[in-house]
Amino acid sequence: MLRAAAWVHWVLFRPCTGLSVRMISSGIDRKGVLANRVAVVTGSTDGIGFSIARRLAQDGAHVVVSSRKQQNVDRAMAALQGEGLSVTGTVCHVGKAEDRERLVATALEHGGGVDFLVCNAAVNPLVGSTVGASEQVWDKILGVNVKAPALLLSQLLPHMENRRGAVILVSSVVAYMPYVELGAYNVSKTALLGLTRTLALELASKDIRVNCLVPGLIKTDFSKVLHKNEAFWNKFKENQRLQRIGQPEDCAGLVSFLCSPDASYITGESIAVAGYSPRL
Amino acid sequence: MLRAAAWVHWVLFRPCTGLSVRMISSGIDRKGVLANRVAVVTGSTDGIGFSIARRLAQDGAHVVVSSRKQQNVDRAMAALQGEGLSVTGTVCHVGKAEDRERLVATALEHGGGVDFLVCNAAVNPLVGSTVGASEQVWDKILGVNVKAPALLLSQLLPHMENRRGAVILVSSVVAYMPYVELGAYNVSKTALLGLTRTLALELASKDIRVNCLVPGLIKTDFSKVLHKNEAFWNKFKENQRLQRIGQPEDCAGLVSFLCSPDASYITGESIAVAGYSPRL
Amino acid sequence: MLRAAAWVHWVLFRPCTGLSVRMISSGIDRKGVLANRVAVVTGSTDGIGFSIARRLAQDGAHVVVSSRKQQNVDRAMAALQGEGLSVTGTVCHVGKAEDRERLVATALEHGGGVDFLVCNAAVNPLVGSTVGASEQVWDKILGVNVKAPALLLSQLLPHMENRRGAVILVSSVVAYMPYVELGAYNVSKTALLGLTRTLALELASKDIRVNCLVPGLIKTDFSKVLHKNEAFWNKFKENQRLQRIGQPEDCAGLVSFLCSPDASYITGESIAVAGYSPRL
Amino acid sequence: MLRAAAWVHWVLFRPCTGLSVRMISSGIDRKGVLANRVAVVTGSTDGIGFSIARRLAQDGAHVVVSSRKQQNVDRAMAALQGEGLSVTGTVCHVGKAEDRERLVATALEHGGGVDFLVCNAAVNPLVGSTVGASEQVWDKILGVNVKAPALLLSQLLPHMENRRGAVILVSSVVAYMPYVELGAYNVSKTALLGLTRTLALELASKDIRVNCLVPGLIKTDFSKVLHKNEAFWNKFKENQRLQRIGQPEDCAGLVSFLCSPDASYITGESIAVAGYSPRL
Repeated sequence: MLRAAAWVHWVLFRPCTGLSVRMISSGIDRKGVLANRVAVVTGSTDGIGFSIARRLAQDGAHVVVSSRKQQNVDRAMAALQGEGLSVTGTVCHVGKAEDRERLVATALEHGGGVDFLVCNAAVNPLVGSTVGASEQVWDKILGVNVKAPALLLSQLLPHMENRRGAVILVSSVVAYMPYVELGAYNVSKTALLGLTRTLALELASKDIRVNCLVPGLIKTDFSKVLHKNEAFWNKFKENQRLQRIGQPEDCAGLVSFLCSPDASYITGESIAVAGYSPRL
Repeated sequence: MLRAAAWVHWVLFRPCTGLSVRMISSGIDRKGVLANRVAVVTGSTDGIGFSIARRLAQDGAHVVVSSRKQQNVDRAMAALQGEGLSVTGTVCHVGKAEDRERLVATALEHGGGVDFLVCNAAVNPLVGSTVGASEQVWDKILGVNVKAPALLLSQLLPHMENRRGAVILVSSVVAYMPYVELGAYNVSKTALLGLTRTLALELASKDIRVNCLVPGLIKTDFSKVLHKNEAFWNKFKENQRLQRIGQPEDCAGLVSFLCSPDASYITGESIAVAGYSPRL
Repeated sequence: MLRAAAWVHWVLFRPCTGLSVRMISSGIDRKGVLANRVAVVTGSTDGIGFSIARRLAQDGAHVVVSSRKQQNVDRAMAALQGEGLSVTGTVCHVGKAEDRERLVATALEHGGGVDFLVCNAAVNPLVGSTVGASEQVWDKILGVNVKAPALLLSQLLPHMENRRGAVILVSSVVAYMPYVELGAYNVSKTALLGLTRTLALELASKDIRVNCLVPGLIKTDFSKVLHKNEAFWNKFKENQRLQRIGQPEDCAGLVSFLCSPDASYITGESIAVAGYSPRL
Repeated sequence: MLRAAAWVHWVLFRPCTGLSVRMISSGIDRKGVLANRVAVVTGSTDGIGFSIARRLAQDGAHVVVSSRKQQNVDRAMAALQGEGLSVTGTVCHVGKAEDRERLVATALEHGGGVDFLVCNAAVNPLVGSTVGASEQVWDKILGVNVKAPALLLSQLLPHMENRRGAVILVSSVVAYMPYVELGAYNVSKTALLGLTRTLALELASKDIRVNCLVPGLIKTDFSKVLHKNEAFWNKFKENQRLQRIGQPEDCAGLVSFLCSPDASYITGESIAVAGYSPRL
């Protein structure tokens, strides 16, 4: 727990508002909700993934962070440990079997089991048109966005069974309403909706729930090509009656809920965090 | 950034914008996440509605309970007050304009505004076939299940604006996958999916989010005709790979989340609490 | 396999199973695909409904046209009879029980049974906001758009059984993606998606299929408030990558298909005729 | 119109029933609908694909049939040519670039352009559990079911532009409601729903519509592991209120419609031919 002086310091000098307040405050009271649990979050050194990792750690879990570059892993771990959170980390390109194995091994160092897996790593969406995509582009997109989560889960599964665990896949509103510019990326995100449902059926008997976070336009480096484009953003905002752009913390709030006992009868669901809904 | 003195002042004395509430309440206790908020829950003296009322009160809200019979209202209030929760109550048949007015008046007795509206009241599902439904049956089902929530919201709306409020409608998995025996009831529940989305668009500018709870088979008196039918239940459970029947508290957990700041970028969504998902 | 003699007998003397009708009629001419069938189309003196009536008559059916005004019925009948098509007509406000009865009676004048029912009559969409809708507005919209098709079908049903019949309800893309300006109209159109599915389940054993036409922006008087608004139309067209506005005949083509033997395994479906799809 | 003698001859000696009636008869009158058009159908020497190929040829198109084995291609071509239909054929494993190129070349032999592409080739669904799927299994399923249709379309596209063309992808009801036994196959079929929509957006400006056939349980060799399992079939039939199992011709009827001018404003849609609908 943060001491009072640190907290005042943070109140005075941290730039952001509501979310961080929530973080600190809920550091006091809700820490218990995921205490003694272990969470693996891929693509978690920046943006949505980082925010999820931080939130699950604030909720009391030990979190294993990872992404493709060592320096990003180091930076994220330093930041989270600086907040007094329990984290370990490792480099992991989810598309590589040996990296996934190392990630599993790192996760198991903390107590021998894993409760939560959040699959956030994804290929950059700007892959061009679907009909222009080469075999290599398809392999990369489907490999990282669809195959890798399934394979990582397969490797983790023996260590997740019968722990009231949860898997969260990260899709996108483009899964439902494709952006023409995103081509094969749209398709990979639709596939994740199906992966969510079939995994939910398969893993129900192992007491593992599987749900899907469906972010809309969230303010991250990943999406800045969209939200920094003022014409796009203004039109998008008007079309969807958005009041504001989403923040990574908005996504983290849902993931925290989906891992918690409050969501213990929710599985197979895909839930948009978008300021609107892309489907009935 | 707020200067420290102003900020402390604001923390202490600002009454009820969502942000300050969030800080103060969650700074103390998870139970306080909805402190100083007022929630109206219809059909809340039994089953899912009662469980939602209790949970929102446990989260710190003042809750207005209601249903069609005085004795049920009395019983529910006694039970909740016996748990030390802040509740008031009134008889309300949501299909009657004067009852809705009385409910609004009762809600306003507690501080002058309303933050959350949960519309749970519904006609019993066993209405027979769709083609066998008379004009009277249709009027009753559409009246209570679809029209009444919209009209109640209209009456409450002037008191809900700009408070970071939330509306939760209660649909059903039969909205997506109709049970043939439920006829017009299925249709009314599908209509609520549309009502959720159109209200979400309309109310976004008033800082009110609108989402939809989609229960599956939940163990209540309302549904016992289904779950007490062993043949039905066994087949249903097997078809959906269910591990257990849902409990009213499972629904309450989602509603608690949807009212909380963690869901502040979620609107227009319909989320199943069913042990499976009825849709992509 | 039937022996030839028995089969010839059956071709000649079996009155009205779908199969024999199919063989005989389509043996003559594509225009005859619906020969010897009777179709009731509501709201059919203008726009989409008129186009459907014309197409089903061109396909060989006898078509009963109707709408609220005698002069419109007269005009439509004159136009269709002028094309050599087989039609009768009557005034019918679908929200009125006695009008529905008269429509049924008119339909039965032609051979004693009805094969197809297309429910196109609808309240004008410009009903204002959902939260601004009075009880009277809701009653009108739900009454005409949702209840009336169900009640008309109930009245026709005894005359539609076991004829390989088909019902087509007419929803709208706003059922999936509401326009904020259309309020309760959106909700009624979503309800029709549910009505389609529950009726399909109920009527399967009577050999009646039930499907839903989901028009997008179709060039009619009904929709001109939208497509005549150049700003709206340009934005809409760009958002959905539309190449053109839809024509009533585009809708009629789908309805013709849905009534034909080619669609004999399609039931419960909702199909958009919109130049794009509003859902996965 | 068929002369009586020919018709009696056909009655006596043709093996199949209703569908063939339709075929022969519509061979006279509807032949025009796709006359002078060229259609490529993959996986078309058996089952659903064969039925689609036959129907499009009956509608007047020249059809290029293909599948993985020369003897199957020879058999299918002989059967179709024996019916007086215009077909050519080639071996094509859609997962192989050189095979796709040969298929394109074969298609271009007939007039230099292609109007319709129906992608039916698919990996056998019995691939086991999702979490048990190896990287090789994923590569095969996603490669053949998702990547191959996209790549084949890319190769054909220069020859399809501005001809009022149509692409039909073949998904499955398991895209919406996964069967737990089908694992990664379910996921690939969900991906096709997304591929349909993103391609529809991309190709609208080239006057090519893209839609998706969503078969339910259709009586083919491919699906016999399901429909031959009596316990499964009986339960499935009861759950979905099915009156009968689907026939390949039911699928062909929809594809014929989707290629025809009657569907010229339908794009991006997924339509179930299943005797029920798996979604709103």
